[in-house]
Amino acid sequence: MAPRAGYRLPKIPEMTIRRLSVYTRCLLQLEEDGVKTVSSQELAERFNLNSAQVRKDLAYFGEFGVRGIGYYVSGLKAELQKILGLDREWAVALVGFGNLGSALFHYKGFGRQGFRIAVVVDDDPAKVGHEVDHVPIVASRDLPREIKSRGIQIAIVAVPAESAQAVTDQLVAAGIRAVLNFAPMRLRVPRDVRLKNVDLSIELETLSFYLAKSR
Amino acid sequence: MAPRAGYRLPKIPEMTIRRLSVYTRCLLQLEEDGVKTVSSQELAERFNLNSAQVRKDLAYFGEFGVRGIGYYVSGLKAELQKILGLDREWAVALVGFGNLGSALFHYKGFGRQGFRIAVVVDDDPAKVGHEVDHVPIVASRDLPREIKSRGIQIAIVAVPAESAQAVTDQLVAAGIRAVLNFAPMRLRVPRDVRLKNVDLSIELETLSFYLAKSR
Repeated sequence: MAPRAGYRLPKIPEMTIRRLSVYTRCLLQLEEDGVKTVSSQELAERFNLNSAQVRKDLAYFGEFGVRGIGYYVSGLKAELQKILGLDREWAVALVGFGNLGSALFHYKGFGRQGFRIAVVVDDDPAKVGHEVDHVPIVASRDLPREIKSRGIQIAIVAVPAESAQAVTDQLVAAGIRAVLNFAPMRLRVPRDVRLKNVDLSIELETLSFYLAKSR
Repeated sequence: MAPRAGYRLPKIPEMTIRRLSVYTRCLLQLEEDGVKTVSSQELAERFNLNSAQVRKDLAYFGEFGVRGIGYYVSGLKAELQKILGLDREWAVALVGFGNLGSALFHYKGFGRQGFRIAVVVDDDPAKVGHEVDHVPIVASRDLPREIKSRGIQIAIVAVPAESAQAVTDQLVAAGIRAVLNFAPMRLRVPRDVRLKNVDLSIELETLSFYLAKSR
């Protein structure tokens, strides 16, 4: 069950990483249902996945299956969580507390996977100095201090497009290592900072592409 | 500049479709800035893209570049919008008007790309019968009527996980053709309905994967 040292290989497709997240959720569900072992076929059937894809994705990280048994649900779940960095808690800064920031703050999925919003950043004087569910709301000038004192490595940017680059520059200067950007624009970060853009309308556009093709 | 008939080929990677959306945004920006033509190198440099990837992605759909000139900004933008189905308006049903639904309703990006939320669905008696920015809020029992009368083909599901499958079954029965799901669970839909899951914590997990690898 031990992952090969090879999981530091650089060429793992991002879609594989995304699917590992999905598999982890499926395994959590099976664990809750009291299932002890599962084959790739059973996993695929129950959760609407592709069993060959499951085997191929897992093969990047090691030999997890046992002949005649399949996968041990709890063991595989723990291995995948470790690979994804979910065997620890990550303190996260949420920058922007408008409609979207507020929705992200209350999004249940983050906490469940070990992402804890430790500070909210918003320059609205009506918000600064208050707390939301015991999390402090601070002004952006206090970002460096908060990021250092709370050991924050990940920031979620949910501010309007026009202020996104400025706030990201502040985050980078304060030592943040990864940015999840919801502002509808492409940000620039140094090479050693990971950036992930979430553009919600791109999701709709992949759908309209397929609908347009078949009309 | 005409796209090859071949753009109905089935094997276009989803990541290519997603990048077409990104290129369209970049071209819109260039157009706003008054730029008439652009090479793949210039496009790549200005927007932090990979120029070989740009050329490869576009090649799925036709020959858009002109030797010695590059791409005509407005022409290429219009072609990509057509390919992505963005040369028309899509009426969208937003199902669920809690924190997330409300943030999605106010998300500026959708409207800009031709996605118009035509009806909001929520069974909260305090919301049903009201309007939000002139868009009616209706109960789920009225879904079939609303979807038919408003010509809605796309639905955004932003309800809690436990009601997501039931509401999706209603949407499918009412004739919806594509579903963008924000509920943190995997939904089942018939083969002829396109489903796209957006799991916001998966985005964070691709970041923690890379941070965990380098610790």
